[in-house]
Amino acid sequence: MADELRGKKVAILIAPKGTEQVEFERPREAVINAGGTVNVIGEKTGQVRAYNHDLEPGDTFTVDKSFDEVSADDYDAVIVPGGTVGADRLRGNDAAVRFVRSFFEQGKPVAAICHGPWVLVEAAVVEGRRLTSYPTLQTDIRNAGGIWLDQEVIVDNGLVTSRKPDDLDAFCAKLVEEFAEGIHEGQSQSVTAAR
Amino acid sequence: MADELRGKKVAILIAPKGTEQVEFERPREAVINAGGTVNVIGEKTGQVRAYNHDLEPGDTFTVDKSFDEVSADDYDAVIVPGGTVGADRLRGNDAAVRFVRSFFEQGKPVAAICHGPWVLVEAAVVEGRRLTSYPTLQTDIRNAGGIWLDQEVIVDNGLVTSRKPDDLDAFCAKLVEEFAEGIHEGQSQSVTAAR
Repeated sequence: MADELRGKKVAILIAPKGTEQVEFERPREAVINAGGTVNVIGEKTGQVRAYNHDLEPGDTFTVDKSFDEVSADDYDAVIVPGGTVGADRLRGNDAAVRFVRSFFEQGKPVAAICHGPWVLVEAAVVEGRRLTSYPTLQTDIRNAGGIWLDQEVIVDNGLVTSRKPDDLDAFCAKLVEEFAEGIHEGQSQSVTAAR
Repeated sequence: MADELRGKKVAILIAPKGTEQVEFERPREAVINAGGTVNVIGEKTGQVRAYNHDLEPGDTFTVDKSFDEVSADDYDAVIVPGGTVGADRLRGNDAAVRFVRSFFEQGKPVAAICHGPWVLVEAAVVEGRRLTSYPTLQTDIRNAGGIWLDQEVIVDNGLVTSRKPDDLDAFCAKLVEEFAEGIHEGQSQSVTAAR
């Protein structure tokens, strides 16, 4: 089981500020423990600070590549962590939103947790999909056409979502499974023309 | 002009954490300077800390009454400040959302700035209304049926909205005008059955 993701290259997003540290570190570690490699993608290369419980400054992390330098062609899957401020910043970055949308267009697996699914709403890729998120996003997800469910993890055809840090065990286990499976044709069917 | 709001009682919301300080202080001051009185309404009475630029701890403020203790019947108008985390917390509180929705039902003026309009999305009161917000909310507002515009302040029949702290001069001037006018019949027409 330690090499399910051998040869797989995964992108994980981080905001210039406000990304929830544990939702960044734990999924990254899960991919590495499964034999995969992870690139940290942000607005620009260099150091950024993560946060704990939304508002307490956490540790700093290195951004490997900027959104402008990467393409979904270069990766097998993408992870979108939460943090209220962090996810709001990510959805406000057009290049980040386009990057995530491309994974859906290519049928590649996507994992998003907590406030991370706002990026999926922004990318107009949730219509008709079953997903979860931090509960405060449920109205935004339903208004975008998604089917919001209150469960620790939802897997829908390559899309893995969870609600909050307490769900990380289930989230990490399922994202490794879905990433290992590779392309899911159903993933591209929800991409709408909104952007 | 210093007594346009004489006799008017205004509610201003504050979250347990993450409300943007300047978006709380400036509108509150504008109402007081116009001769009105302001009550600060939060999850529970006592002290809460506001934040600056989303993530820097600011000053503490006193909550006068909790959402459970108040009714829109007691007030002439309501103000919803932003702060990414603060507005997300407010929309997650059902009593806060019902309180704001009641102002729309009663045709009373409402002012919301920055991320504050998420509370209006949650209250299902933006359908067919012209409004603005911090730009990252535009997709959520459009998906909720609102007409999102990129202007420093939008006034639509008792609903006053602005984008960010830089817009506060215009926001405060217009909210005083709308609050002084009192009931706007058009305000209740956008209340939908979503909740």
